[in-house]
Amino acid sequence: MPVTKADIKFIKQLQRKKYRKQYRMFVVEGWKSIRDFIKAGYKPVKIYAVQQFLGLQKNNTIEIINPKQLKQLSFLQHPKDALAVFEIKQHDTLPDKGLILALDDLQDPGNLGTIIRTADWFGVHHIVCSENTVDCYNPKVVQATMGTLADVTVTYTDLTRYLKEVNLPVFGTFLSGDDIYQTRLPSEAVILIGNEGNGIRPEIARLITRHIYIPKAPDALAESLNASIATAIVLNEFYKKLRIEK
Amino acid sequence: MPVTKADIKFIKQLQRKKYRKQYRMFVVEGWKSIRDFIKAGYKPVKIYAVQQFLGLQKNNTIEIINPKQLKQLSFLQHPKDALAVFEIKQHDTLPDKGLILALDDLQDPGNLGTIIRTADWFGVHHIVCSENTVDCYNPKVVQATMGTLADVTVTYTDLTRYLKEVNLPVFGTFLSGDDIYQTRLPSEAVILIGNEGNGIRPEIARLITRHIYIPKAPDALAESLNASIATAIVLNEFYKKLRIEK
Repeated sequence: MPVTKADIKFIKQLQRKKYRKQYRMFVVEGWKSIRDFIKAGYKPVKIYAVQQFLGLQKNNTIEIINPKQLKQLSFLQHPKDALAVFEIKQHDTLPDKGLILALDDLQDPGNLGTIIRTADWFGVHHIVCSENTVDCYNPKVVQATMGTLADVTVTYTDLTRYLKEVNLPVFGTFLSGDDIYQTRLPSEAVILIGNEGNGIRPEIARLITRHIYIPKAPDALAESLNASIATAIVLNEFYKKLRIEK
Repeated sequence: MPVTKADIKFIKQLQRKKYRKQYRMFVVEGWKSIRDFIKAGYKPVKIYAVQQFLGLQKNNTIEIINPKQLKQLSFLQHPKDALAVFEIKQHDTLPDKGLILALDDLQDPGNLGTIIRTADWFGVHHIVCSENTVDCYNPKVVQATMGTLADVTVTYTDLTRYLKEVNLPVFGTFLSGDDIYQTRLPSEAVILIGNEGNGIRPEIARLITRHIYIPKAPDALAESLNASIATAIVLNEFYKKLRIEK
């Protein structure tokens, strides 16, 4: 079966947020990740694969293509074994229980992807983002999540309003506040992470109920940590307390 | 003063490891980072700046240029306020005390940069890399370190030989072993991190004296953590124990 020019054009359009929003679809590359999205209940619109993978049902959504054709469709320098188009899932309710991660205008796709992967590792399945946070269906984000986006609900909303309404303590990471190693961390909370360069916006910062910081060596030159690193350290501390209390 | 074609060619060459090795020079962008390298004793060969910064001594290594000229030299999409060429510092001795990070064939420049920045945060100033680990003077690495490379000694060597000869326990992170939360972590050790896709090579893995793992939520889909995230969590645990014991 040939890959048509229309196929190529359509897939390339999905690199852009405008078209992902219009079609409500996104692209996942690599059979391992595609399988994770199918298992998680995402509906594949089309799957292009270089072989008939085990577990891949034969139906009209599947097209077996050759590696050269996959290269024409792929966003990657080194394409994997398959590429799929999925429908975006609608999430209508905002989370209000357990541990929730909130991102205020995070911009870097690699950071968001890594944060989703790390959140999933530590059992955090809900991420609430400000409307200006990078789109989680951006191909670079999907790639960096290594399939874990299938397992994490990412919602975009008015973050100020969400934080005002949610009935949970809001923890924000700063360069001063309470030492996270010495702070009692609850099992239910919102953990707020700011933009890579500018941190948390003042209007959002006002809604934080607990300021924490990650201790730094006295002789360190570093003024801050990368956003995904700070998130990982905070999630690790929350997860550890949860685990030890069990 | 005009920026010559020879200047542009020379700077662009320094994007490549071959030329960095040949000239023993590398590029740093942004006055804040440049200042950190000068303070740390790195010798600037040439500094191109859009203004006469405070603390910048007037001498023949400095050229005041306009932003358009800086754009011609810069590796960045959005150039900063200055660009400098520094001499690479020779490190002749390998570290054998305190906390040391060892990297086995780490490939991603962003990961290495983030690891250097995180190591500096937690007071780890020595990183020993296998010869196939990405070059720390790669412009993407330098950029991601946010100036902290000035403060961290990165040495490339035969890692198998180094680990055999160093008289310290070697901790390796795996998907099984001892739970890092429950493990006694010493104040002096080598912390070993592997390649993003393939982990630690078997010949290196044999030299590990303590296998540790980062606990994962039982319902997590994630099979692993990003290399820089795993490093940060391990460094955080070591640093915390150091800090609490003090």
